[in-house]
Amino acid sequence: MPWIDLRSDTVTQPTPAMRQAMATAEVGDDVYQDDPTVIQLERLAADMLGKEDALFVPTGVFGNQLAVFTHCRRGDEVIAGDDSHLVWHENGAAAVISGVQLRTIASRQGLLEPSEIASRIRVGEDIHIPRTGLICLENAHGNGRVIPLATMEATAATARKHGVPIHLDGARVFNAATYLGCDVKAITQHVDTVMCCLSKGLAAPVGSILAGPAAFIKRARYNRKLLGGGWRQAGVIAAPGILALTEMTKRLDVDHDNATYLAQKLAEVPGIEVDMEDVHINMVWFALPDGVDMPRLMQAFEAADIRANGAYGGKMRLVTHWQIDREAIDRTVSVIRSVVAG
Amino acid sequence: MPWIDLRSDTVTQPTPAMRQAMATAEVGDDVYQDDPTVIQLERLAADMLGKEDALFVPTGVFGNQLAVFTHCRRGDEVIAGDDSHLVWHENGAAAVISGVQLRTIASRQGLLEPSEIASRIRVGEDIHIPRTGLICLENAHGNGRVIPLATMEATAATARKHGVPIHLDGARVFNAATYLGCDVKAITQHVDTVMCCLSKGLAAPVGSILAGPAAFIKRARYNRKLLGGGWRQAGVIAAPGILALTEMTKRLDVDHDNATYLAQKLAEVPGIEVDMEDVHINMVWFALPDGVDMPRLMQAFEAADIRANGAYGGKMRLVTHWQIDREAIDRTVSVIRSVVAG
Amino acid sequence: MPWIDLRSDTVTQPTPAMRQAMATAEVGDDVYQDDPTVIQLERLAADMLGKEDALFVPTGVFGNQLAVFTHCRRGDEVIAGDDSHLVWHENGAAAVISGVQLRTIASRQGLLEPSEIASRIRVGEDIHIPRTGLICLENAHGNGRVIPLATMEATAATARKHGVPIHLDGARVFNAATYLGCDVKAITQHVDTVMCCLSKGLAAPVGSILAGPAAFIKRARYNRKLLGGGWRQAGVIAAPGILALTEMTKRLDVDHDNATYLAQKLAEVPGIEVDMEDVHINMVWFALPDGVDMPRLMQAFEAADIRANGAYGGKMRLVTHWQIDREAIDRTVSVIRSVVAG
Amino acid sequence: MPWIDLRSDTVTQPTPAMRQAMATAEVGDDVYQDDPTVIQLERLAADMLGKEDALFVPTGVFGNQLAVFTHCRRGDEVIAGDDSHLVWHENGAAAVISGVQLRTIASRQGLLEPSEIASRIRVGEDIHIPRTGLICLENAHGNGRVIPLATMEATAATARKHGVPIHLDGARVFNAATYLGCDVKAITQHVDTVMCCLSKGLAAPVGSILAGPAAFIKRARYNRKLLGGGWRQAGVIAAPGILALTEMTKRLDVDHDNATYLAQKLAEVPGIEVDMEDVHINMVWFALPDGVDMPRLMQAFEAADIRANGAYGGKMRLVTHWQIDREAIDRTVSVIRSVVAG
Repeated sequence: MPWIDLRSDTVTQPTPAMRQAMATAEVGDDVYQDDPTVIQLERLAADMLGKEDALFVPTGVFGNQLAVFTHCRRGDEVIAGDDSHLVWHENGAAAVISGVQLRTIASRQGLLEPSEIASRIRVGEDIHIPRTGLICLENAHGNGRVIPLATMEATAATARKHGVPIHLDGARVFNAATYLGCDVKAITQHVDTVMCCLSKGLAAPVGSILAGPAAFIKRARYNRKLLGGGWRQAGVIAAPGILALTEMTKRLDVDHDNATYLAQKLAEVPGIEVDMEDVHINMVWFALPDGVDMPRLMQAFEAADIRANGAYGGKMRLVTHWQIDREAIDRTVSVIRSVVAG
Repeated sequence: MPWIDLRSDTVTQPTPAMRQAMATAEVGDDVYQDDPTVIQLERLAADMLGKEDALFVPTGVFGNQLAVFTHCRRGDEVIAGDDSHLVWHENGAAAVISGVQLRTIASRQGLLEPSEIASRIRVGEDIHIPRTGLICLENAHGNGRVIPLATMEATAATARKHGVPIHLDGARVFNAATYLGCDVKAITQHVDTVMCCLSKGLAAPVGSILAGPAAFIKRARYNRKLLGGGWRQAGVIAAPGILALTEMTKRLDVDHDNATYLAQKLAEVPGIEVDMEDVHINMVWFALPDGVDMPRLMQAFEAADIRANGAYGGKMRLVTHWQIDREAIDRTVSVIRSVVAG
Repeated sequence: MPWIDLRSDTVTQPTPAMRQAMATAEVGDDVYQDDPTVIQLERLAADMLGKEDALFVPTGVFGNQLAVFTHCRRGDEVIAGDDSHLVWHENGAAAVISGVQLRTIASRQGLLEPSEIASRIRVGEDIHIPRTGLICLENAHGNGRVIPLATMEATAATARKHGVPIHLDGARVFNAATYLGCDVKAITQHVDTVMCCLSKGLAAPVGSILAGPAAFIKRARYNRKLLGGGWRQAGVIAAPGILALTEMTKRLDVDHDNATYLAQKLAEVPGIEVDMEDVHINMVWFALPDGVDMPRLMQAFEAADIRANGAYGGKMRLVTHWQIDREAIDRTVSVIRSVVAG
Repeated sequence: MPWIDLRSDTVTQPTPAMRQAMATAEVGDDVYQDDPTVIQLERLAADMLGKEDALFVPTGVFGNQLAVFTHCRRGDEVIAGDDSHLVWHENGAAAVISGVQLRTIASRQGLLEPSEIASRIRVGEDIHIPRTGLICLENAHGNGRVIPLATMEATAATARKHGVPIHLDGARVFNAATYLGCDVKAITQHVDTVMCCLSKGLAAPVGSILAGPAAFIKRARYNRKLLGGGWRQAGVIAAPGILALTEMTKRLDVDHDNATYLAQKLAEVPGIEVDMEDVHINMVWFALPDGVDMPRLMQAFEAADIRANGAYGGKMRLVTHWQIDREAIDRTVSVIRSVVAG
């Protein structure tokens, strides 16, 4: 029996169809730009995301950092949410690689006030101040909330007014589109470049996409080589990536429904408080009652073949994905209920 | 007749005694560490600031950046106030030179809540997150407020608890001590390293000090060479720096009193609103009444041989220093009063 | 009919067994370190290369840059051959990412005189000079020559004497071992860390290995995340990597024999001069007679379904690999012979 | 009695006229660009060096690094002589600050073959290679040789052909012009930007000049602030800098004659071998006879109030400057002669 792995959607394993695609993919040397499957993936991704061109990159961090590197000159300032992946989980890479100064602002799971952004933008020629080189948004946020389209639009207007580009960390942008019930282009039209992950909820084993204007992607291709992301026969992993985009994007609503189901079931457990208003995509945050024996909970999970990360700041996060069905959810809630009951 | 220059205390000219000291200073080659006047200045500064050793550097920006470079490894995170000089006026240097990631947090003219700092500190071995390498404070803040000693102490306790060092941008730390009525060591005891400017209110023409533990200063000396700050016969500018520390620190209260006097006089002008609670050191911020003709005011200043910077965010700042006496203040207020009267 | 692709061994396609392995690989989330196939590959690679631990990385450039980043502090000096891959083909990455200063020295296809290296090594505390942080060797060199074991040993002795580590760009280190007729550990014992490619002659579609001391690899794991190389279900590409190491390393002698065969056949063509003494591994360099119509040669290749890179500095390079057999070689030489005949 | 200091011309102390100039200099806040003496110095330097504009900077290292930073994008390649100051004595700064890759080539005290430079230049769009961003020359070289004008011209032609700019480390460019018997512009016309030191042989206590096209200097002014070189009342050190350019440049021939005199006297000492062909400017290199007791020589120097650096690679260097007259030289040679005699 396989694990019920609720730690993240990064744990998703490739589907049988993806494995088959890997085994039969037509490949070439992608540094020479003659891998047909990679070319097909990049064309498909560019079209779906509404951008002129796209580039296949090893990871989401790589895609975000490549975007920062290609957008900015060293010393530029990058405005980003204080709780964004770029700030939290990329190990200072933007400063190390690109030499850019982060300007972190208060964020509610990715929600930045356009006015807060506007007040940080610095342009012009003053000798005493850096220039704003980029605004980074994250949608859906890594903790699960989606930015409303109106906010995306307002932020884009602010950025355009000052001539500052926007990069979207869209690791889960298809989840965001699913939540909003819109085509993903309704989101990505408001940004200059977007990174989206083919792994995570879309289940490809490896790889992300960076999409944007053709001239930008051309420079990014050079920079990708510099940063060590110039693959050879990458078609073998582009093939499942194509399925991620064509097939798996269509079923994210199932994961979201399952997350809502999980949230509701958890809310029924006495003493548990679920952040119901944060259940936008496939993530559920909740607080256990005071005094719950966390080590015992983790042991009970282990005994039931359930994997979950421990609490952070008093809260636990559980994440649904294509390998989590309602039975798995029921089993998980049952374990929690029994431990909470003491 | 000389200008009345209220733009900043960076405009202060050397005193006659300083000019004499420059002309007669004993000098040597400081890269070989045989300039006796530099050695004397560095010893004096270390003692006054309560640190083991000190280093003479070209500017305040240089001193701050040298501190960041010497404290941190690339990729480390540096916590700093959103309105600090490091963030606002150093052109992204910390990212360019040191490859560190700024973590900017809300600040009220340098006042950072210790709890806000604490919530940003990240230590340990988690593969997903950067380490906090440094906390930067600024006291007095470049807009004029002083951090209370209790806050310095609480911040130091927070930092020590997590093993994170504190660097103080003390460009005006002697102004802070003067305001608090304490020895400057009562402030600097709470930080690991401190940069203080010999120019600005202390009137030396050029140069700043970086002070800290002996092992730190030894590494900083190597790094100063790398960053292009290894001077030769620097004794000629260390000499006025010695007078800045021994003489000029004693008279900062005059500038502060004059600032208070200026604030009170301005407050008497109908329609002007002075931020009285922000007059800690030698700076006065005030809002002119709506509708005042700013170009006309600047012209009137020009005609009266007064220099001032224009309004920023609707407010003007005037700064007192050793070349500003009460007569100069009266003349300035008189010009303002007449333009405001229309 | 497939292409005869002699441009490089980077063009090698995965074998049928590799495709099968990808389809059936057991996988997990490698950032959580629970992908069993990646763990198996890293253990296998470490053992074969004679190092304590190993890390799976996206590309050879990534592995080399990760090594430089993990070995060095910013400002360190890295000694490398003037014609090494690090200098020629990594787009300045070592300066961008790691802030290290390259010290490039004359090289004959990777052959650096140990005395030349020794004269560049700088250690100690002098304030005026950088420290040597790393020596980079490349074996086999990207143009095909192998460093003799005695030179490796002498270089290691020099490095050890001064306490400077050696990193080996061993993209083709198994080719080098095959040429020398030794176990690969006879080479890698002389270096602290080694990068080897699973693609190129070993035919895996994607991926390289960085191996070294356990403490080094632990830090490299953190840095790999920072540089955007933290994969998730990387087992799908680790699986063919395992076959690259266990199976494909055993048959490199076939490619080398074929290269020798190709060199001999080319040498029989009137007017062609082959660099016979450089045919160590799977590469053949030769000069066409003056006046040969290069565009016509490239067209003739195209018409015969042969791919080759154009001449560089008056010379052409052809590379053999598992998809090149003697028939393909005969066909290629025949095309060249007919174009040279005019 | 003062020291006879032959360690370097960096040890030169300001002349009495310079001290007087410091005491009476008219000054302003140079970050606001209203220091009249700095403006005068920069105008004078630009005119003398034949460039549109110039910038006053703290040190020679600062000027060189600012030039690299302003010329290059990160990842660019910089061609420089293996024995240049940039490579030897700037602590890896070009990689740390600017993220550029040094391409070091064999040099005979600054003499680089234009053909060697040409073979390293890389331009164009190939995804696999960095671009050459800058060529750095050093004239006169820090060990004393001057590059012939014909070589400067040939190098300039090579650089122009490929569209690559040249920066000249002209720390001692006025010495070079004095040796060549030409106006300094005959040298600097062949480069895009030039750094020259006002200290060293020109005896100003502190400071260097970076000169070049107006647009370049404008960007350099911004970058100077970023790198911590934005001084305030710098007029006090610009004043002696003006004398360095107007007065001290005219008397360098005296130092050169004295160096020749010193070389001849040393050559008369039995067993001493002087590199006579290297005595271009104010430096003399010589080898002591085998078996000379170096510690005893250093003690004898000390006893005679003579300062000299110890031997490096078996050779000693002595440097003349305005504070070294023939009597001092006679005294020094006398000490050496007596120690060599045993």
